[in-house]
Amino acid sequence: MIDDVLRERRAAVERTLDANLPATDTPPAVIHEAMRYAVLGGGKRIRPILAIAAAEAAGASVEPLLVPIAALELIHTYSLVHDDLPALDDDDLRRGRKTTHVVFGEAMGILAGDALLTEAFSWLSRPIPGVAAERQLQALRVVAEAIDSKGMIGGQVADLEATDSAGAQPSLNHLRFIHRNKTGKLLGASVLLGGILAGASGEKLAALETYGSSLGLAFQIVDDLLDQEESSATLGKTAGKDAAQGKLTYPSVVGVEAARTELAALLEAAVRSANAIGGSVNYLAPIARFICERRS
Amino acid sequence: MIDDVLRERRAAVERTLDANLPATDTPPAVIHEAMRYAVLGGGKRIRPILAIAAAEAAGASVEPLLVPIAALELIHTYSLVHDDLPALDDDDLRRGRKTTHVVFGEAMGILAGDALLTEAFSWLSRPIPGVAAERQLQALRVVAEAIDSKGMIGGQVADLEATDSAGAQPSLNHLRFIHRNKTGKLLGASVLLGGILAGASGEKLAALETYGSSLGLAFQIVDDLLDQEESSATLGKTAGKDAAQGKLTYPSVVGVEAARTELAALLEAAVRSANAIGGSVNYLAPIARFICERRS
Repeated sequence: MIDDVLRERRAAVERTLDANLPATDTPPAVIHEAMRYAVLGGGKRIRPILAIAAAEAAGASVEPLLVPIAALELIHTYSLVHDDLPALDDDDLRRGRKTTHVVFGEAMGILAGDALLTEAFSWLSRPIPGVAAERQLQALRVVAEAIDSKGMIGGQVADLEATDSAGAQPSLNHLRFIHRNKTGKLLGASVLLGGILAGASGEKLAALETYGSSLGLAFQIVDDLLDQEESSATLGKTAGKDAAQGKLTYPSVVGVEAARTELAALLEAAVRSANAIGGSVNYLAPIARFICERRS
Repeated sequence: MIDDVLRERRAAVERTLDANLPATDTPPAVIHEAMRYAVLGGGKRIRPILAIAAAEAAGASVEPLLVPIAALELIHTYSLVHDDLPALDDDDLRRGRKTTHVVFGEAMGILAGDALLTEAFSWLSRPIPGVAAERQLQALRVVAEAIDSKGMIGGQVADLEATDSAGAQPSLNHLRFIHRNKTGKLLGASVLLGGILAGASGEKLAALETYGSSLGLAFQIVDDLLDQEESSATLGKTAGKDAAQGKLTYPSVVGVEAARTELAALLEAAVRSANAIGGSVNYLAPIARFICERRS
């Protein structure tokens, strides 16, 4: 059942991305080809799906919110395109295909990432029928602050620093900083964006915040466990790479068993918050389980 | 007199940038050092000054608008930091100092640029006392659309394409596309941002738009002429580089005399629009003259 719900929401996100990204014949064509290549090459679309689920749990009709919600995927994709660059993680494979800079060159990898981030804020600022401008501005600000130098980018910087000092004593605090910021904050902001655009406030918004932050950390622990266990074919990206690069991961710092225990606790916290939100269309708890039990 | 006005407005912009950029001891420290290095290393601050001038001409008190206006300088700086990267223009010198990636490394050059762009949208979305959220959202959208893949980034892509095909017949249309987008659109959006936040609409906003677009193109023609004529010491960046890289420039395509004639016509159009706006504090025309007659 949750599979059908996810498939349908994912299809709505794909449609929105495809319909709103500039066409490949818009000049200069090459950057629009690169943007579309990066975004439309598959992906689980977890951030927009979380935003949709939060908006539906808060009682909104989701159709008018799809453009700002799809912007979350532009932001996620920009972060992948830049992280994959030679000067950063230097990765050739992503979502089962060659990375953007491998296909279009390094300059276009940088500029396509920049363009996706910019496009995201353009989508987030387009007028939405039925949503007050104050709320929209608040939602946009929540997203911007989640991905700034103290948020997602800060997590990436801390990750690079940890990799550079590989061999030093791994610090659980440093690892938590990386995870909370690099992955957790945008996932949390996705949930909040959906809630805020749907008009949620007070206790409902607070429950969404707890749900999002628990799930954000859980998501990254799952990622770390999968990187250790799965093959590249299943993941669609280079597996075992974190360990090979000496990156801090949950299993490498606390051990696999402790990582699994923390994951279970985070899932429980997410499900509890999901249930506290109520609502007639609320599939936040099944999504949390889906994310924590995924195999890729 | 205009010198005093510009000096005072520039000081307000510097103060705002310094007070609102994250402190260098905010973790992760290195990215905040890189962001501050890039932004606070001098610069004419022309985009924020244009926004201030537009807001004042439209009758606003400028103090509450300084944070979103200073965001324009973050955007301009991000574009310089990324353009200077080895994969793009590969420049070592900017504003008379080593470029950001030379000092902090290529990874941090990419991430600091990303962080400045993101921070800009954060500043643009902070609540402004006395400004309606609708207007603020409109102003933010004008800026986002000016710097997207069909705007500033598109201009940079077209510029790279022109450089790659050096030796081919230079096309005035291609050059105009580059100039209008790479420099012109953000300058135009800066004027509009000031006007929109100040509450301008209708004919006044249309006059500001003409002023901004004329000045945007004029600015780039001056840049091209200076690159050809001036020394690196005066410019604070590598001079003669455009010609050496086979970049399209106005003088190289139409000749120096025709470039000067077009510049004079654009200045006249800007001054005419500036005067049409009226207002009790209107120094848009002197700024236009200052920009067109600058020597660095």
